[in-house]
Amino acid sequence: MTKELYPRERLAQVRRAADEAGLGALLLTPGPDLRYVTGYDALPLERLTCLVVPADRDPFLVVPRLELPAARESPAGSLGVELVPWDETDDPFALVAARLPRDVAKVAVADRMWAVMALRFRAALPGAEQVAAGGVLRELRMRKSAAEVAALREAGAAIDRVHRAIPGFLKPGRTEREVGRDIADAIIAEGHDGVDFVIVGSGPNGANPHAELSERVIRPGEPVVVDIGGTMPSGYCSDSTRNYCVGEPPADYAAYYDVLREAQEASCRAVRAGATPEAVDAAGRDIIAAAGYGGHFFHRTGHGIGLETHEDPYIVAGNTEPLAPGMAFSIEPGIYPGAHGARIEDIVVCTQDGFERMNHTPRETVIVD
Amino acid sequence: MTKELYPRERLAQVRRAADEAGLGALLLTPGPDLRYVTGYDALPLERLTCLVVPADRDPFLVVPRLELPAARESPAGSLGVELVPWDETDDPFALVAARLPRDVAKVAVADRMWAVMALRFRAALPGAEQVAAGGVLRELRMRKSAAEVAALREAGAAIDRVHRAIPGFLKPGRTEREVGRDIADAIIAEGHDGVDFVIVGSGPNGANPHAELSERVIRPGEPVVVDIGGTMPSGYCSDSTRNYCVGEPPADYAAYYDVLREAQEASCRAVRAGATPEAVDAAGRDIIAAAGYGGHFFHRTGHGIGLETHEDPYIVAGNTEPLAPGMAFSIEPGIYPGAHGARIEDIVVCTQDGFERMNHTPRETVIVD
Repeated sequence: MTKELYPRERLAQVRRAADEAGLGALLLTPGPDLRYVTGYDALPLERLTCLVVPADRDPFLVVPRLELPAARESPAGSLGVELVPWDETDDPFALVAARLPRDVAKVAVADRMWAVMALRFRAALPGAEQVAAGGVLRELRMRKSAAEVAALREAGAAIDRVHRAIPGFLKPGRTEREVGRDIADAIIAEGHDGVDFVIVGSGPNGANPHAELSERVIRPGEPVVVDIGGTMPSGYCSDSTRNYCVGEPPADYAAYYDVLREAQEASCRAVRAGATPEAVDAAGRDIIAAAGYGGHFFHRTGHGIGLETHEDPYIVAGNTEPLAPGMAFSIEPGIYPGAHGARIEDIVVCTQDGFERMNHTPRETVIVD
Repeated sequence: MTKELYPRERLAQVRRAADEAGLGALLLTPGPDLRYVTGYDALPLERLTCLVVPADRDPFLVVPRLELPAARESPAGSLGVELVPWDETDDPFALVAARLPRDVAKVAVADRMWAVMALRFRAALPGAEQVAAGGVLRELRMRKSAAEVAALREAGAAIDRVHRAIPGFLKPGRTEREVGRDIADAIIAEGHDGVDFVIVGSGPNGANPHAELSERVIRPGEPVVVDIGGTMPSGYCSDSTRNYCVGEPPADYAAYYDVLREAQEASCRAVRAGATPEAVDAAGRDIIAAAGYGGHFFHRTGHGIGLETHEDPYIVAGNTEPLAPGMAFSIEPGIYPGAHGARIEDIVVCTQDGFERMNHTPRETVIVD
C-alpha cells in the first residue's frame, strides 16, 4: 500500500511545482510535508534532517549520521535520492548552503519547520528570500489520490469502530477522564498508531468545543459530546464526533439537535466540485441561524484532513477557492447553548457530483442505558 | 508544585532579559518556551496562540476564541496577562502587529514556532528582524531552579521504576516490539503523561543508537540496549539507558562494557561548575579511545534535558560554555562494535562542586534469567 500512497513520481511532481513557483530550492524538515513527498516519517529532532529539492540539480537528503540507518530503511531510502550524512561537530546548514548555487534567490521551507531552523537557513543563505512550502505543496496535498482516499476510508472505519464501542464505556458515575482513557485505548486497539485527541464533553463541558478531559462525573440525562481522532500507520488521520446521552436527554436538547442534524446534512449536500468552502459553511449555518441558534455556533464548519488532522482546505466564511475532487475535510457544525451542547462531525471527500462520507455510524444521539 | 515550577515572577524575568537583548517583542507560540514562561501547555494548532511580550507595554496572550476556556483555566490565566481572543475570520497576525509599536525593529520568535507562522509574522511586521527566542530564554532555561530539579528527580525516579520492571518483560522468543509495548505501558503506569521514545536494541540493533522497535526476536546470550523516556505531568522529561542480556553475554561484550562503565563514570565525575561540556565529553571519550574503541563511539556524550528531551547544553566537542549549577543533561557514552552494542545513560544535574544523578538503577548489565 505504501508505494501507492507515497508514489515515487511524487518527488518529480513536487520538483516541477517548485520550478513553476520560481523556487531555487525546497527545504523539507521532518513533518507532514516531508512525509508527503518521500513517505519518510522522520522524527522531529534538534539535529537537522532535511530533504533539499534544488531547481537545477538532483535532490538530496541531509541526515544526522545517527539517523542514517532509519533514513535508509525508510521509503526515502529507495527513492534514489542521495543521502548526505553529517557528523556531530558539522554545521548541517552550511553543508546545505554549500551544495546550493551561491545566488539562490528564493527557497521554500516546510510549513512546520522549527523557526530556529528557518533562521539558521536564513543565516546560511542570506541572499535567499524564504516562503512557506505550503504555497507549492498545498495544491498537491489538498487533492487526495485514490490511495489517499482509501487511507482516509480505513482511518474512518477505525474511528467508527471506536464510536461503536463507546456505549460500553459511558456509564453514569464515571468521570470524563475515565471514559477518555478507555476511548484512547480503543483508538489504538482499533488500528491507529497514535491518539491525536479525545474530547468527552459532558453537560456544560459539551458546550466548549475544545474541552479537555476533566474529573467531572457523568450524570444520567446529560448529553455528552465525543470528538475523537488518531493517526493510522499509513500517516493518515481520523476525526469524528458523535453525541451520547445516558438515559433521556432534556427536551431543549432534542429540539436543537434536530436543527443540527439538518444543518450537518445540508452542509454535506452542498459539497461538490466547484462549490466554495464558504457556501458549504453557509448551507448549514443558515439553517442554524434561521432556527434561532446562530449565536450558539461560533466556529468554522470544518477543516481539511490528511497527513495532518487540520490542513487545507478550511470550510469557513471567506474561503472562496472552489472545491475539487479528492479534497477531504470535516463537516462539523455545533450548537452550544451552555448547559450542554452538540456537534456532529463526518469526514467527507469531494467528488465530481457530490461527496463520499468516511464515517458511517448513526448521527442520531446514541442513548446509553 | 506548579506554582514553584512555573513561578509568576518568571514573566518579569523574561521581560527584563528581552529588554537587555534589545528586543521589541518576544512572540511565543505553543511549545516548551511558552510553557516555561507561563506554565501553559497549549496545543500546537494551526490557529494562532501567541504570548506577546512587548518591550514597552504589558504582555498579552492572543488565543483563538475556541481556546479561551483552556487558556483561562491554564496557569497563564492567573498571571494577570490580558487574554485577547480572535474569531474564525480574523487575522491574528495583523491583530498582534496592531498592538505593537509601528517601528518595532527586532522580535524574537519561539524556537519551535512553525515556520509558516514566523513567515506570517514577518509579513505583518515587515520592519522587524526576527531572531530565535532561545537566544534570550536558553540562559534561563538551562539553569534549573530547585523546583525544576525536583521535577527532574521525580521523572528520574519514574523511569527508574520502569527499568526495574524490564527483566519481567524481556524473555527470549519475544520481539523487540512486544517488549517495547510493555515498556510503553509501564512508562505511563509509572506516572508519565506521555511516552517520548522506546528503544529496545537487541544484538546488532543495539549497535544502532537510534534503532526503531522491530519484529526482531530476542535470543539468549544477546545484549539488549534499552533507552527510554517520557514526559511527566509537570512537563519535565525522563531519559535513561540501561543494558540487559538474557543469559550470559558474549566475552567481547563484557570486555568493552567494562571500558564503557569506566568512561561513563569519568564523564560524570568531570561535571562541576566551571567545567566545559567538551571536557566532560573528552573525559569519557579518551578512556574509550585509549582502550581501542574510539571508532565505535560516534555520537556526542549528552544533551540537556528539561521541558524538552533534547535542549541546551549539549555535551559535545566544541562546546566551551562553562557548566553552571542547575544545568541538567545526559551522560551517555556508547560503544557499538556492530554485532551488539552498549550505552549507559544517566541524567545528571551540575552542582557547585560536582553533580547529582537523577537515575539510580544499577549500571551493570542486568542478566535476565
